[in-house]
Amino acid sequence: MPPPPPYDGCHLIADLHGAKRLDDLAFVEEVLRAAAEAAEATLLNVTLHHFGPGLGVTGVALLAESHISIHPWPEHGYAALDMFLCGRSDTISRALALVCAMFEAERVTETRHRRGYGAVAG
Amino acid sequence: MPPPPPYDGCHLIADLHGAKRLDDLAFVEEVLRAAAEAAEATLLNVTLHHFGPGLGVTGVALLAESHISIHPWPEHGYAALDMFLCGRSDTISRALALVCAMFEAERVTETRHRRGYGAVAG
Repeated sequence: MPPPPPYDGCHLIADLHGAKRLDDLAFVEEVLRAAAEAAEATLLNVTLHHFGPGLGVTGVALLAESHISIHPWPEHGYAALDMFLCGRSDTISRALALVCAMFEAERVTETRHRRGYGAVAG
Repeated sequence: MPPPPPYDGCHLIADLHGAKRLDDLAFVEEVLRAAAEAAEATLLNVTLHHFGPGLGVTGVALLAESHISIHPWPEHGYAALDMFLCGRSDTISRALALVCAMFEAERVTETRHRRGYGAVAG
């Protein structure tokens, strides 16, 4: 029997509703760093951009295991999150729970994809 | 009748197989910049990391409209791509075609999610 396909990545897409502090640059950075730590990932870089007073802070953490991004619309309490982890996908639920707790999200919806060479899309 | 839900984002997840030049930092940057331009997106920042000689270059372009990321495994000719565009999702197919052409990918699989406040996950 051939060995199993060598895919081990999990790409999580999550939508947070009723989230708070989405316009706070230092806090968004803190969330991204905490999420990487909870995921037991190796953080390479954090890039953030503030769209202006009262507007959102968009950001991405580049990881050795892929990335975590957050794109918020504070005027709607909405944040679009994604986390793509290769090799440590067992920690992704913990990282998501932490992000939701930190932003005090009232509701979250999510989908997950298995990814990697050998994986079938869908 | 109420207005349509205010979601206008498209999050594309694409897996490229048989791709080339995934270990070339300058080229990966060129691809990310070209993809952002093809998407008619506003590029805020490009972050890249080279894992070492013969290994891959991982990178992300932060956009005003969200992000484009590429995480490659050159030893398998495989690259995990995602593009998340809000407001200009009509250009995403053109940007994907350009990325596939530049990396000379032999095969690509993709899935798309509609995202935004008011959107239903799935």
